[in-house]
Amino acid sequence: MKFGINLFPTIGPADKSAVDHFDDALRLAVLAEELGFHHVKTVEHYFFDYGGYSPDPVTFLAAAAARTRRIRLVTGAVIPAFTHPVKLAGQLAMLDNLSHGRLDVGFARGFLPDEFAAFGIPMDESRERFEEGVEACERLWAGEDVVFSGRFHRFGPVTLLPRPAQRPYPKVLVAASITPESCAAAGRAGRGLMLVPSINKPERTREMIDLYRRSRAEAGHDPDAGEVHLSYSSYLHEDAGTARERGRRYSAYTNAKMVEAVSAWAHTRSGDYDGYQRIVAKVNSANFDKQVDEGKALVGSPEQVRAQLRQVREWYGDCTVSLQVISGNMPYEESARTMRLFAREVMPGFTVPEPGTAQAADAGAAPASPASASGTVLTG
Amino acid sequence: MKFGINLFPTIGPADKSAVDHFDDALRLAVLAEELGFHHVKTVEHYFFDYGGYSPDPVTFLAAAAARTRRIRLVTGAVIPAFTHPVKLAGQLAMLDNLSHGRLDVGFARGFLPDEFAAFGIPMDESRERFEEGVEACERLWAGEDVVFSGRFHRFGPVTLLPRPAQRPYPKVLVAASITPESCAAAGRAGRGLMLVPSINKPERTREMIDLYRRSRAEAGHDPDAGEVHLSYSSYLHEDAGTARERGRRYSAYTNAKMVEAVSAWAHTRSGDYDGYQRIVAKVNSANFDKQVDEGKALVGSPEQVRAQLRQVREWYGDCTVSLQVISGNMPYEESARTMRLFAREVMPGFTVPEPGTAQAADAGAAPASPASASGTVLTG
Repeated sequence: MKFGINLFPTIGPADKSAVDHFDDALRLAVLAEELGFHHVKTVEHYFFDYGGYSPDPVTFLAAAAARTRRIRLVTGAVIPAFTHPVKLAGQLAMLDNLSHGRLDVGFARGFLPDEFAAFGIPMDESRERFEEGVEACERLWAGEDVVFSGRFHRFGPVTLLPRPAQRPYPKVLVAASITPESCAAAGRAGRGLMLVPSINKPERTREMIDLYRRSRAEAGHDPDAGEVHLSYSSYLHEDAGTARERGRRYSAYTNAKMVEAVSAWAHTRSGDYDGYQRIVAKVNSANFDKQVDEGKALVGSPEQVRAQLRQVREWYGDCTVSLQVISGNMPYEESARTMRLFAREVMPGFTVPEPGTAQAADAGAAPASPASASGTVLTG
Repeated sequence: MKFGINLFPTIGPADKSAVDHFDDALRLAVLAEELGFHHVKTVEHYFFDYGGYSPDPVTFLAAAAARTRRIRLVTGAVIPAFTHPVKLAGQLAMLDNLSHGRLDVGFARGFLPDEFAAFGIPMDESRERFEEGVEACERLWAGEDVVFSGRFHRFGPVTLLPRPAQRPYPKVLVAASITPESCAAAGRAGRGLMLVPSINKPERTREMIDLYRRSRAEAGHDPDAGEVHLSYSSYLHEDAGTARERGRRYSAYTNAKMVEAVSAWAHTRSGDYDGYQRIVAKVNSANFDKQVDEGKALVGSPEQVRAQLRQVREWYGDCTVSLQVISGNMPYEESARTMRLFAREVMPGFTVPEPGTAQAADAGAAPASPASASGTVLTG
């Protein structure tokens, strides 16, 4: 398995100034590199405390690239519906070069009605704009004299500059939340997949991953080469009770921010977003302790988190895990402690082992079916 | 006067890889800070070697911000016609926070037909899109619950996050090339002004600056508080002959790249771009030695450049000068030498003096009229 950090801000000016937020976020990126994490990831959102400090993930990742040398930089994710593909592909190519080829690009459709409204984009176009935007970026990166004739964008022949450092282009990942077809499409296209296991039952997440790998294989892509990113809220502390108590507090804080951001779903309907109307009720009814017990968050003492992570590996196999380490208005030191404890006391048992070692045999074992997990786990 | 560096790339993959370009550009930004320069600036262009390595100036400046602590970061410029104002304002606000309030934002209309074509924007809309984009960014930065109803964008009420670090918002500068009315509009709006003196006769540049300051005063803005940025190609060497020879070579290289980028003007007409059809002929007929002799480039030994800069100050008063230090496919060491020689042997006589010193009296003297300059200077 690989492990990174997800710096998804869920604060506003009343919590922490943006200057302090970015200072802390850059320090955490540097710390992540020092601790041997695989990647640092951040999000694209607007207006709300839920992600709104990060309207452009590339801008933050460019700063992080300048402070680091090894760690990978992952957009988690950019939303092509909101940026012209020529601008988006060019900006990402700059980051790939600035970082000497350390960029992995996650793309998402976006799902907040207020964001689509501000950009003047009908939500019913979101799937088509997403597909067109990702394809346009891939073609601008890979080819020269590109002629593109989409529904929303027509251009060319043009040759994008700068050319990406990684040829033909950086690894592309696609975010999916609750729609299996998104996973199948990502697999067919040979792209990676980004999931948020907390919003579905483990069987469902497992089905989505299986569907993704099957779709890769059917389309002729190596099913095991497809990277699957799983994002988890996380809070580690030497003392299990303290971890649970603080994790609960920050989770409640984050949920309140999310409720604010998704409130427009109460009066929004879109054929491109089947099931999203229930999102407010879902977030409101989220029970933190149940989430932890169901393996939907990595919270506890290092020993507890090792057990949680073994469960994750049994269910989903060797995925890439992103730890959301700045839930709520968490002070820097608590994020740093979570990362240090994880890196020292959890990660060593789960990172990709050298071939031929005993650990390799263990890691290579087929993941257990979620059906074999306890009943408690499956009632989420 | 204040002095910064302008990192306007005029190279493509055949000249230098983008990885090497950004490595060098970041080193030059750090060197500029060490040498006491006021700012580092970069451009937004696409597709052509002329600027195309920099499709998003904010991405580069975010990396530069992470490597520096004092130097100001200037977009020179961003083009609001190509990016939705919610994205652009948000991205710039991130940079302002990442840099602890070191951002000055230059906006431009853009002038390359191929760029407008790729973005699907009619050039005849460029002036209106520019005005609307700048206004939208200023309002998103300054206000909360902003409702915006423009011709191209309608949104709100929304409150942009993050709030800029500088309140109500960073210094705004507007690029003008050959159109006096652009200078008057910048003055009336209380914005700063960015000019490229090489493309006009000195009298014309002087008239534009005078009009700008007059317009500021008439609109009730302090005329002297309006910052005027002047961008100059520059090449310094201890040996005057070497400076002239190498400056000539890199200038020819840059001009060839520019001709390529502006070639579409041969078959483009737009009421928003009166006079631009002649741009190809102008660039093709540019005579480097005449340019230097006319005070349109800062090239020579430190002693010669001091004289050139005294002339600039006589004509235009205490402006902010940006030295283009990476013309053509210039190796890093030549850019660094130009900057070191300038910082050590030219800058000290021209930077803002402490009040009450003899230098202050000198710097405060009224600039001479361009008409008093030699005939050679005025036949550009």
